[in-house]
Amino acid sequence: MAKAKRPAIREDIPASPRQVLRGLEYHVDALRAIGEEFHRRGWSLGTSSNYSVVIDHAPLELLITASGKDKGRLTRTDFVLINSQGEPTTIQQPAASAERHLHIALAEALGAGAILHTHSVWGTILSDHFHENGGIAIKGYEMLKGLEGVTSHEHREWIPIFENTQDIPVLAAQLRENLAQMTPTPHGFLIRRHGLYTWGKDLDQARRHVEVFEFLFEVLGRRL
Amino acid sequence: MAKAKRPAIREDIPASPRQVLRGLEYHVDALRAIGEEFHRRGWSLGTSSNYSVVIDHAPLELLITASGKDKGRLTRTDFVLINSQGEPTTIQQPAASAERHLHIALAEALGAGAILHTHSVWGTILSDHFHENGGIAIKGYEMLKGLEGVTSHEHREWIPIFENTQDIPVLAAQLRENLAQMTPTPHGFLIRRHGLYTWGKDLDQARRHVEVFEFLFEVLGRRL
Amino acid sequence: MAKAKRPAIREDIPASPRQVLRGLEYHVDALRAIGEEFHRRGWSLGTSSNYSVVIDHAPLELLITASGKDKGRLTRTDFVLINSQGEPTTIQQPAASAERHLHIALAEALGAGAILHTHSVWGTILSDHFHENGGIAIKGYEMLKGLEGVTSHEHREWIPIFENTQDIPVLAAQLRENLAQMTPTPHGFLIRRHGLYTWGKDLDQARRHVEVFEFLFEVLGRRL
Amino acid sequence: MAKAKRPAIREDIPASPRQVLRGLEYHVDALRAIGEEFHRRGWSLGTSSNYSVVIDHAPLELLITASGKDKGRLTRTDFVLINSQGEPTTIQQPAASAERHLHIALAEALGAGAILHTHSVWGTILSDHFHENGGIAIKGYEMLKGLEGVTSHEHREWIPIFENTQDIPVLAAQLRENLAQMTPTPHGFLIRRHGLYTWGKDLDQARRHVEVFEFLFEVLGRRL
Repeated sequence: MAKAKRPAIREDIPASPRQVLRGLEYHVDALRAIGEEFHRRGWSLGTSSNYSVVIDHAPLELLITASGKDKGRLTRTDFVLINSQGEPTTIQQPAASAERHLHIALAEALGAGAILHTHSVWGTILSDHFHENGGIAIKGYEMLKGLEGVTSHEHREWIPIFENTQDIPVLAAQLRENLAQMTPTPHGFLIRRHGLYTWGKDLDQARRHVEVFEFLFEVLGRRL
Repeated sequence: MAKAKRPAIREDIPASPRQVLRGLEYHVDALRAIGEEFHRRGWSLGTSSNYSVVIDHAPLELLITASGKDKGRLTRTDFVLINSQGEPTTIQQPAASAERHLHIALAEALGAGAILHTHSVWGTILSDHFHENGGIAIKGYEMLKGLEGVTSHEHREWIPIFENTQDIPVLAAQLRENLAQMTPTPHGFLIRRHGLYTWGKDLDQARRHVEVFEFLFEVLGRRL
Repeated sequence: MAKAKRPAIREDIPASPRQVLRGLEYHVDALRAIGEEFHRRGWSLGTSSNYSVVIDHAPLELLITASGKDKGRLTRTDFVLINSQGEPTTIQQPAASAERHLHIALAEALGAGAILHTHSVWGTILSDHFHENGGIAIKGYEMLKGLEGVTSHEHREWIPIFENTQDIPVLAAQLRENLAQMTPTPHGFLIRRHGLYTWGKDLDQARRHVEVFEFLFEVLGRRL
Repeated sequence: MAKAKRPAIREDIPASPRQVLRGLEYHVDALRAIGEEFHRRGWSLGTSSNYSVVIDHAPLELLITASGKDKGRLTRTDFVLINSQGEPTTIQQPAASAERHLHIALAEALGAGAILHTHSVWGTILSDHFHENGGIAIKGYEMLKGLEGVTSHEHREWIPIFENTQDIPVLAAQLRENLAQMTPTPHGFLIRRHGLYTWGKDLDQARRHVEVFEFLFEVLGRRL
């Protein structure tokens, strides 16, 4: 991914939020379109959901939605640039969500280029129903071929389910420990009664993974 | 909330409905957009639903949708300005719904700045199913954090359910008595086989509360 | 309802379909908008549904959708003008559906000004499930107040269900015999595994009745 | 169907994809509109679905969606022209899906003019539930009259269900053997946990068949 050109920010001269994000309009507008679409489809209601795009991997710089915004109506200044500690990389930014640490973990441990966290009715129901099993195994559906690298409906996808918590750094550490060593690497996971995290090498792929998972969740949910 | 500037209305010179609402276009158009959206999402069908915004708290002046209108197609004159007795504060206005007394009660007893009454399929089903319990307890869902002041999914939200009645002043008195003394104060309540009332300090917050409750109602409804 | 002004049609000079419908554009476009909306909402899929507006009651003249059209894409010439025998009142018209005789019966026996026949998933399911009972009784729902003349949720609405048939004139005779003498007069009826007929003094009222019935069908259907 | 005029393609001068499809814009844009609509309605999510139109029957030339594209955002170059062996008939084209052999079999064995493969939640659920029976029998629904040639709700439609496979040529041979000799000829079939294939003499008819089947699948699915 080409590194976006942004103006050097001098801390002694306060920058406007628009200046901070200059050069990143393409990614900002792509995430805003995702927000509008996912809100309409019922996957990002209330103040739920967070979306991010990796701007640079080394050192990590992540563009992520600001905390507590209505995802159906994101403005160009509802975004934050953060580093691998979750700190803003420039001044004058709105607050990022605590869940930024999960995005960072996924970018670092799995090399994801874009990460989408959504919150649907079916995902919520399944995350609770299958929580005791530790995850959901999905096999035999043609739709699985929409997940990157899957070439047959006989693929078995394991979607781990983690207990919900307000202690995000602990969950981030759990992700780093568990996800990278699973074989095959999962394409997403659920947090109980909370929602889905999925990712891709870029935003298009991550968006496709949301669509694929939501379809499969609805099929499984209606069959319960 | 800043007091909107409206022309003094002289009773001896009949004002047009447009003159009455002059200076309130911002609120009128925001409520019309809510109506269009909620109709599309299935929460304000037929002639159901009422929406209001508090224009002034002391003395109370409330802008509320007129009675019996299609909420998907509200015009700029489908609104009424009322006082704390539910009487129109200017001449030449369309009739307000009997349910205006519930809006007044919520504005006065809870200090709400905007009140939204909707009528969804899932809300109707749950209001009947849980009526015997007197309400619905919802706990453990991340989506609860979309309700103002809630910071953890472990919050327990109690949504009282009142029996439906055509005697609205009696129900209004019940609300005044019950809601203000509940701890924590609920963010909404249901009327049996009728619909949801929720509110917020402003229209954006009230709208978010509708979204949060409707999401949770669908999750609970599908699990019944 | 004011009689629309249309040009006298001379049978010796073939008129174009556009000439036939001149002066009726208001009604034609209102029915086209209904078709677009009902298709989008899933109530008029395939070639199902028929909509009509009474142009004159004495003698009866009815503007009705032509047979077999996609209701989501009606053009200005996809309509027919018929008399009380179901015959076209002008030359050069497309064929009307056999179900025109049901529309005529409702206009004549109940004085309806507009009639909407739709075909939804929930209506289809309920029409089958409750067929043995001869109809569906709905009581206690606030949404019932969206039906013309209903002032309390305690109203009991009886929705008769008729067996489906391809012999429409027989069904039309059944309607004339049954509906007018029911007390209170129903606001609609179902044909088994086929769909809903409802009506109103004008198109807005009939459309509202579809919305009210579909809402109630979904509530009842989900509770089965 | 009139043969579209396209420029002769000289293999020694590489043509752009736009040149290849010149003269076929009408069909290309019709399929793009289908893709946008079916994605919105939830019938073509992820990378699922394939759509085709027969450009010529003798020798067969088929315009078909390219492999792996998001059907909600098809561009004018996301299409391939193929012959009866499934080979591209011009140079410089994107890859066609392996499922092209099913489209070819339907065009040749049944004389279909347009073929639509979709992938809905209800179709997926039913294809699994009724797989043991070898198919689904649907009878008694008025909506069946939306299938070409069906004139009564008493028609019995048999929708065969085939086991899913990644060996498409074997499935294509199965289709040729089975479908043409069934009486009456089915209007569509399901592949287990995969989706629906339906067709028509042209794209409008095929699209109507998708709508009719999806409606019936939802009715049957909700009654399970």
